[in-house]
Amino acid sequence: MQDHHAAYELLAERLTAQGIDVERVKEAIKNHHIETPSWGYANSGTRFKAFPWPGAAVTTRQKLDDAAMVHKMTGIAPTVAIHIPWDKPEDGDYDAMRQYAEEQGIRIGAVNPNVFQDDEYRLGSFGNPDPAVREQALDHVLECCEIMTKVHSDILSLWFADGTNYAGQDSLRERKRRFEQALETVYQHLPAGGRMLIEYKFFEPAFYSTDIPDWGTAYAWSLKLGDQAQVLVDLGHHAQGVNIEQIVAFLLDEGKLGGFHFNNRKYADDDLIVGSVNPYELFLIYNELVDAEQSSEPHLRETARNVAYMIDQSHNVEGKMAPMILSVLNCQEAYAKAQLVPRQQLAEARAAGDVLAAHHLLTEAYRTDVRPLLAQVREEMGVPVDPLAAYWASGYEEKIRKERGITATSGGYQ
Amino acid sequence: MQDHHAAYELLAERLTAQGIDVERVKEAIKNHHIETPSWGYANSGTRFKAFPWPGAAVTTRQKLDDAAMVHKMTGIAPTVAIHIPWDKPEDGDYDAMRQYAEEQGIRIGAVNPNVFQDDEYRLGSFGNPDPAVREQALDHVLECCEIMTKVHSDILSLWFADGTNYAGQDSLRERKRRFEQALETVYQHLPAGGRMLIEYKFFEPAFYSTDIPDWGTAYAWSLKLGDQAQVLVDLGHHAQGVNIEQIVAFLLDEGKLGGFHFNNRKYADDDLIVGSVNPYELFLIYNELVDAEQSSEPHLRETARNVAYMIDQSHNVEGKMAPMILSVLNCQEAYAKAQLVPRQQLAEARAAGDVLAAHHLLTEAYRTDVRPLLAQVREEMGVPVDPLAAYWASGYEEKIRKERGITATSGGYQ
Amino acid sequence: MQDHHAAYELLAERLTAQGIDVERVKEAIKNHHIETPSWGYANSGTRFKAFPWPGAAVTTRQKLDDAAMVHKMTGIAPTVAIHIPWDKPEDGDYDAMRQYAEEQGIRIGAVNPNVFQDDEYRLGSFGNPDPAVREQALDHVLECCEIMTKVHSDILSLWFADGTNYAGQDSLRERKRRFEQALETVYQHLPAGGRMLIEYKFFEPAFYSTDIPDWGTAYAWSLKLGDQAQVLVDLGHHAQGVNIEQIVAFLLDEGKLGGFHFNNRKYADDDLIVGSVNPYELFLIYNELVDAEQSSEPHLRETARNVAYMIDQSHNVEGKMAPMILSVLNCQEAYAKAQLVPRQQLAEARAAGDVLAAHHLLTEAYRTDVRPLLAQVREEMGVPVDPLAAYWASGYEEKIRKERGITATSGGYQ
Amino acid sequence: MQDHHAAYELLAERLTAQGIDVERVKEAIKNHHIETPSWGYANSGTRFKAFPWPGAAVTTRQKLDDAAMVHKMTGIAPTVAIHIPWDKPEDGDYDAMRQYAEEQGIRIGAVNPNVFQDDEYRLGSFGNPDPAVREQALDHVLECCEIMTKVHSDILSLWFADGTNYAGQDSLRERKRRFEQALETVYQHLPAGGRMLIEYKFFEPAFYSTDIPDWGTAYAWSLKLGDQAQVLVDLGHHAQGVNIEQIVAFLLDEGKLGGFHFNNRKYADDDLIVGSVNPYELFLIYNELVDAEQSSEPHLRETARNVAYMIDQSHNVEGKMAPMILSVLNCQEAYAKAQLVPRQQLAEARAAGDVLAAHHLLTEAYRTDVRPLLAQVREEMGVPVDPLAAYWASGYEEKIRKERGITATSGGYQ
Repeated sequence: MQDHHAAYELLAERLTAQGIDVERVKEAIKNHHIETPSWGYANSGTRFKAFPWPGAAVTTRQKLDDAAMVHKMTGIAPTVAIHIPWDKPEDGDYDAMRQYAEEQGIRIGAVNPNVFQDDEYRLGSFGNPDPAVREQALDHVLECCEIMTKVHSDILSLWFADGTNYAGQDSLRERKRRFEQALETVYQHLPAGGRMLIEYKFFEPAFYSTDIPDWGTAYAWSLKLGDQAQVLVDLGHHAQGVNIEQIVAFLLDEGKLGGFHFNNRKYADDDLIVGSVNPYELFLIYNELVDAEQSSEPHLRETARNVAYMIDQSHNVEGKMAPMILSVLNCQEAYAKAQLVPRQQLAEARAAGDVLAAHHLLTEAYRTDVRPLLAQVREEMGVPVDPLAAYWASGYEEKIRKERGITATSGGYQ
Repeated sequence: MQDHHAAYELLAERLTAQGIDVERVKEAIKNHHIETPSWGYANSGTRFKAFPWPGAAVTTRQKLDDAAMVHKMTGIAPTVAIHIPWDKPEDGDYDAMRQYAEEQGIRIGAVNPNVFQDDEYRLGSFGNPDPAVREQALDHVLECCEIMTKVHSDILSLWFADGTNYAGQDSLRERKRRFEQALETVYQHLPAGGRMLIEYKFFEPAFYSTDIPDWGTAYAWSLKLGDQAQVLVDLGHHAQGVNIEQIVAFLLDEGKLGGFHFNNRKYADDDLIVGSVNPYELFLIYNELVDAEQSSEPHLRETARNVAYMIDQSHNVEGKMAPMILSVLNCQEAYAKAQLVPRQQLAEARAAGDVLAAHHLLTEAYRTDVRPLLAQVREEMGVPVDPLAAYWASGYEEKIRKERGITATSGGYQ
Repeated sequence: MQDHHAAYELLAERLTAQGIDVERVKEAIKNHHIETPSWGYANSGTRFKAFPWPGAAVTTRQKLDDAAMVHKMTGIAPTVAIHIPWDKPEDGDYDAMRQYAEEQGIRIGAVNPNVFQDDEYRLGSFGNPDPAVREQALDHVLECCEIMTKVHSDILSLWFADGTNYAGQDSLRERKRRFEQALETVYQHLPAGGRMLIEYKFFEPAFYSTDIPDWGTAYAWSLKLGDQAQVLVDLGHHAQGVNIEQIVAFLLDEGKLGGFHFNNRKYADDDLIVGSVNPYELFLIYNELVDAEQSSEPHLRETARNVAYMIDQSHNVEGKMAPMILSVLNCQEAYAKAQLVPRQQLAEARAAGDVLAAHHLLTEAYRTDVRPLLAQVREEMGVPVDPLAAYWASGYEEKIRKERGITATSGGYQ
Repeated sequence: MQDHHAAYELLAERLTAQGIDVERVKEAIKNHHIETPSWGYANSGTRFKAFPWPGAAVTTRQKLDDAAMVHKMTGIAPTVAIHIPWDKPEDGDYDAMRQYAEEQGIRIGAVNPNVFQDDEYRLGSFGNPDPAVREQALDHVLECCEIMTKVHSDILSLWFADGTNYAGQDSLRERKRRFEQALETVYQHLPAGGRMLIEYKFFEPAFYSTDIPDWGTAYAWSLKLGDQAQVLVDLGHHAQGVNIEQIVAFLLDEGKLGGFHFNNRKYADDDLIVGSVNPYELFLIYNELVDAEQSSEPHLRETARNVAYMIDQSHNVEGKMAPMILSVLNCQEAYAKAQLVPRQQLAEARAAGDVLAAHHLLTEAYRTDVRPLLAQVREEMGVPVDPLAAYWASGYEEKIRKERGITATSGGYQ
């Protein structure tokens, strides 16, 4: 690998000539954090097969170790999302879990309830026709509200597998009302300063209707609930062709964009490495976020500042740690490119109705190879200039393979 | 064709045995009206070619004649939607137009502005970056509000071709805000008792972003505007796989379903004959509507009662009058089948979590051949028992071919 | 339930008046057989959860018992497809398995190899970059060729999970060549009179590329291999919007349609009950098959006669036996409706270029409620007139619940 | 704009260090030619509206002038595809047309028949149920075979709008056979050394079935016809999610990839600027082509060498000349990036089953900013280093606006 300094100097010079404040850009990049998910370090698969990866994490301690290593390599992944009950401590000592994380140099991020893997949830959780099952699901989510306080988390991240598989199976209207009622109760139990993020999904595992199928539903409910409720956008949860950056722009303007579950897909909810299928789309999404960050309007800046950037992916064949690092880096790259968009010139081209010029200005930013810039940022942050190479050279992969061996797909906090 | 009476008697007997009040069902069918669009009687085509149909209407008088003939054949199409300026009288005498319609036995229905076919609208209407173009579009829509009063219409039906073709071309956020502002002005000018229906569309003619891409956007804006603003659902305006009946159920429950543009599609906005591609989906949509009509909750019944059922299709190769009649009949058939759903039994199966039984109850209603029932309804209404056959036998097609000849694709009120 | 005789008489009279030979139609329906899959009787799920169904089969004997019960209820499901190694006898005695099936009144149908659930297949089977894994997969498939002879099966049904998840992961061209080579070897080992059916799939479990992604690939390879290789069409394995009946028509005309895996989907490969999502599409597919069956050209009739009609679905929330029966019945219903298409009149309308009339003729056949006709057929066959009701009344469900209890998801032949 | 030399030197140094022969890469880029379409210089639109662009070409001479200007700016667009009858000389003097093109420094490329815009083609051309219409279409295509000789073209580029809008409208099998018969006749009339490229399309303007819906159909027919028949891939003619590069790899390996119609789309056949929606996909397609170009197998190299790279897009709102130049440049950029893929290392990572490393190697090539390399190539070729800026500065746009004014959408050769 070529030393990056010469390339960085050349790039910085070019950007400066374009009127871009390179120091400000570097500062922004350093402060752009990505949360990784504890479950992303464990084995996962498709309905056909979960191929075990040697060294994949089983216990929550292992997941926290792995998340800490990703942060060590990248410098921008200081928090880890947890999933209850997968990450439930056997002794119930969440305080110890939190301390363990902090000792590794990271913090607990969003708390994710699981109301889809008990046998009772065959017909749903909050949408279930059986009130007893709804109650069970509600109890679990309220417990997660309490866990938020214990682990010092301010985000409750809600995804529901609820829906139906057959027309007629259940009343779409009644399912809607059951959800509204249950979410209202959850909202009342949010810790002070906590936010609940409502995730939507087009389909899977339900194949006829999904109870929160689109951003419109999540938005409508977050509106009814109040300011502490916002929408969570998972990049894999849309119909083909949906313009995600437009949803992002809409929600930002309404103060209702709460966070992301980043991943990528070509077909359905493929849960692949972020940016691996369509890096340009990732850039366009970040472009809206940076546009809000740089806005003159305080409410846009505040909404953008509070967006929770989280990865949610499922590595089936490509390993665990390296793809997680790559996802973090791909987010960082897209964010960096979005910083290079010449917004003033863009505004002028738009005002003039010059379609081609406006489009071209945006794509020229995307064309820029920001690797030298990112290398410089990392050098200044004291993290490896090439995190992926550093990880591969670190011996960590060999260490966990040896220590953990071929592991099963589930586990618990020990 | 077999006389329908024996089949009807047998069907009525079976339905009665199932606890269905056949007289009530017939009454409901008689009162279910479908509005046809004036532009559906004129030539239309794809971007590649508009094949002229012999006898297609050119003038608004001809369109009104055709709409009246569809009503005469079916008995359930008493109104016709107009499109301004396509249906603008040259002398500006909307009163005469209205009277002409009434003389033919029909009434003017929804008023549809057109803000996409002037050269100025290249970059949009309400979303255009140029304030002068926005003003022009606004003036036109406000004129349509006045026309509503003149033609005794209480529906302003708003579809916008607005959007962008290239990432970066315009600010997605600013386009959103321009739309919100313009719609607010329109709302202030609605005649008393008038409603504005906001139509959304996934894509086309814009190919990167559409300013009202989905029901969520239309819903959010109708909410901000107030009770006189509702959402218009066009069956061809969704991404592949979208569960339309769920959107219908949601909007009904919120009091925000304003109406339909019925048509059908296999791929994009194909604008084919209603029910010709997926008759089961049409049934499922009607099932939600009838469920609301039969609800014990007044607000659901009222919302359902006010839904504007309108056809919006584009006949390219199959003629004009006959496919319009078929579309009206296909709506009627789906509505009739939805009347046969045993809602009490269905509720019980759902409450018991019996997925298969609930699904099966619904599909058994769909399986029913309602042609004898509809024949009976028509006989009682005094319209042809087989409207399509009656149309073909009426000589109308030959008459208009002879009188109008091969016609051009545009026209005006004369 | 109304006695069906009066309705049948009325229907028969109407059909006869239309020139349809009702006795011939009944005969055709009686001879139209549907194969059920052994794995469809066992528990299955999504990647998120497999909800166990009380009484679901675990052992192959149980699966054969269940298949026999479906045949007993419907009279048209005399064969069952097996999956190796899921149905591999522990003692290797396939002869005993075959005899057991025959004692229950059914026969073994297609043999399905499994080359996707061993850990070695992480990067594929026939497409794997590692020659040793390809060899392992080949050995397994060749073993299945031998099993065909043992169980008196003449169909090898090939589905591969092979593909890649990331651009660049492997050479698309080399994977193609590896597949061609391996399939050639399999072809050489087919038993005399045996056919290999090559199944294609759009995506899942691979998310960037699938090695046999579409009918074109399967067709191209079946052409290279020879007459004993044909294409298998699974209704859930296409991109949204794909016109499946056109693929069926093409393959029939080329003598390359080997069989179906019937199921239904709204989104991806949802594996739902056949005809539950889009019954009209199922009818259109059957319409092509019946058209070929009734052709004056011997090669079309022969190809159609040899088509293997197989169900392949995954029941996650709706039970096992009842949905399997419903799928069989839905196939039968679609086949029956396709028999009612007035092909001579249709040909005339088409020749005249009368789009609407031709379309209408087809849909009128679809509109027909064939339940009385099917009831009559069943009465004549000596099977229950209402198989689903008969199954629910049979006590079989209670019996297996009691005997088998809540079962795990995998098993073997015992 | 920064002078490109320093950046080029740094890039060349880095590439050389990676073992890439930069001189060979530049040579390849210089020889990679893109054909532009005459119709791309004229006005075009959607079914809703064609917005006229000031200065858009009307006559074929104007189109040839524009194509020559694109070649002058880019150096890699030496040929122009023509469309008959749009480009039919009024005096029938194709020799003069060819000479005129050559005087402007370009040549005539592919000949494109038009069998979709006469009124007779309402129900199709080669697939029409009426033999007289089929004959008319055949005559036109055979005339185009003769025109090929007159304009020194060796490519007949066949796209058909044929299909049906309604199930039942026509026999899918008979349409297939009509097509096979007509194509066979065309094949017999191809000039010596000429190729016919068969284009497929998923849908539009037909909305139920398209007679050549996918690559499989075009491939099957090209196989039956012989070596002079190949498949034409238009990037906008697939269902959502289809892996186009895999189709490219398959057809290349079979010697059946004839050419491309480059454009881009987010939804359907949007016909946008090449690479404007998904530049990464364009890179992946080029990656397969370059992989074949660099193969050790002569048949792959020959097939790749003969691929016709053609643009086919429809500029609705963004102008004419500038977007055409941008499309040409975007092809060049993707081709250049594909040259930077380290194929030997990639092969090793693949053989080792290292998914992440292989993917990463590919994406690192994509990440490279090749603008300095392309600037250097252009400097060496003697064309503008920044073709778009040069075009805008050239005065050509002002000149044609003044000379041609606002023009209509159709024209002819004068």
